[in-house]
Amino acid sequence: MNTEWIAVDWGTSHLRAWAMQGRTVLDQARSDAGMARVGKDGFQAALLALVETWLADTPVDVIACGMVGARQGWVEAPYGAVPSQPLPDAPIRVPDTDPRICAFVVPGLKQMAPPDVMRGEETQIAGFLAARQNWDGVICLPGTHTKWVQVSAGEVVSFRTFMTGEMFDLLSGQSVLRHSVCEGWDDNAFVDAVADTLSKPEQLAARLFGLRAADLLHGQDKGTARAQLSGLLIGTELAATRPYWLGQQLAVIGADGVSQIYATALKQQGAFVETENATAATLAGLSLAKDKVNS
Amino acid sequence: MNTEWIAVDWGTSHLRAWAMQGRTVLDQARSDAGMARVGKDGFQAALLALVETWLADTPVDVIACGMVGARQGWVEAPYGAVPSQPLPDAPIRVPDTDPRICAFVVPGLKQMAPPDVMRGEETQIAGFLAARQNWDGVICLPGTHTKWVQVSAGEVVSFRTFMTGEMFDLLSGQSVLRHSVCEGWDDNAFVDAVADTLSKPEQLAARLFGLRAADLLHGQDKGTARAQLSGLLIGTELAATRPYWLGQQLAVIGADGVSQIYATALKQQGAFVETENATAATLAGLSLAKDKVNS
Repeated sequence: MNTEWIAVDWGTSHLRAWAMQGRTVLDQARSDAGMARVGKDGFQAALLALVETWLADTPVDVIACGMVGARQGWVEAPYGAVPSQPLPDAPIRVPDTDPRICAFVVPGLKQMAPPDVMRGEETQIAGFLAARQNWDGVICLPGTHTKWVQVSAGEVVSFRTFMTGEMFDLLSGQSVLRHSVCEGWDDNAFVDAVADTLSKPEQLAARLFGLRAADLLHGQDKGTARAQLSGLLIGTELAATRPYWLGQQLAVIGADGVSQIYATALKQQGAFVETENATAATLAGLSLAKDKVNS
Repeated sequence: MNTEWIAVDWGTSHLRAWAMQGRTVLDQARSDAGMARVGKDGFQAALLALVETWLADTPVDVIACGMVGARQGWVEAPYGAVPSQPLPDAPIRVPDTDPRICAFVVPGLKQMAPPDVMRGEETQIAGFLAARQNWDGVICLPGTHTKWVQVSAGEVVSFRTFMTGEMFDLLSGQSVLRHSVCEGWDDNAFVDAVADTLSKPEQLAARLFGLRAADLLHGQDKGTARAQLSGLLIGTELAATRPYWLGQQLAVIGADGVSQIYATALKQQGAFVETENATAATLAGLSLAKDKVNS
């Protein structure tokens, strides 16, 4: 195997790496050595543990995006300010690395008012736009912290972050609802919960406890409750983002499961949705970032 | 000390007991042996550890309210269905207790549609109403799971539970916001956040992440952020409960700190609010429950 460069997506909870030759993936690897588990001095060791077999004597470029560029990350890659292209600046070189790698981190984006930040999504946006000349519209990137991003003339104009995924995890795993929400799914219950919440978003906190009470009083199915919990939270998010998605050209970039859930909710509301695989977008964006390093 | 009976408030996270003579408190004790820590067979031991010194040869009545009456509790005390008086039925006798005690648990209340339940608050409501002939209005009982209760002609007509307190604990203690929210308070930031959220409740999930971004980009004070987080969550609750509190006779029953926060928010919105100490209401309610045992 002749690794030309290494693409890295390094988030809070995961580390993923791909051995690349041009835009071709030669090999891939992942671990749970995300930011949350890696101390300031542990980044290089965590990466080398994953990619050591891909390395040779000639140093290769490593291009990383995500939370790895935060202040507590491998190297701080200062945010670019919107409006701007998704990748306005060259990646930041990590100093004093192992001689077998030249590592670079892609800067995130910030918005001063209302205050907001992203790290990693800018790379996916760049990758998505690279294949679509003159694409204007809105991109939704669902995840732990879902982003809604307004794109025009190749620039990120504005964006907004929602803690929907993290709230789902906390409520289903650690709140009183953990007794009433288990594995399982019901598409009808999901779209009904989305529609209910869109019409009365302020009722969220009461509807949440209703999931517990429906279990205690009516023995409601716990997989149905999981779909309802997801529907309540995503419905609230769609109520807040209605100006973003109503009548707009719309793309969802995310892991297949969660993208499908968002697409289902949006289509039910009459929106036209294109979906794009997050990994493909990340690799396309990291390739663009690599070009900036070498130019 | 001549303990005539023992009043007990037994919730998910705490156990509190009072040695009583008539309606006079002779002594009090508390521990963190709440429902969450006590196994099905551990209730009597947890209680005796707290009240042993109050006991003599003659058995005394123990009257307990709260989650201790749940299915996983000391004895299941089946819910009464609303509309009903707050204490419609006599407390349920705990079988096979230590000969020095006769223990009883107060039943909670349930509402079939929309599904909802309470355990403990019914006792506080009964105690509050006992001192107020012909009181009609709405009672807010803030806590981990805040209850809004509509009272008319001595009966609980309907109620609704909000997970506001639990969401505050999860978000401030375990989400990404834990890095940006610390001890401290700012009354102006709180009432501004309440007002903002009341006007656009659907923006909650975006405003939450805004607290993190305001710290990263503007170094926002973390005590101010704590007041804002509380304001965002309570504002959402007040948006949902507007028909409950707008133009109604209104009482808040809770611990002094959280009651004051709710009263501040409600007064800012032009509501007239009476506050009542939760412990006083609990003891008055448990006294009424004791009368039902002996009648």
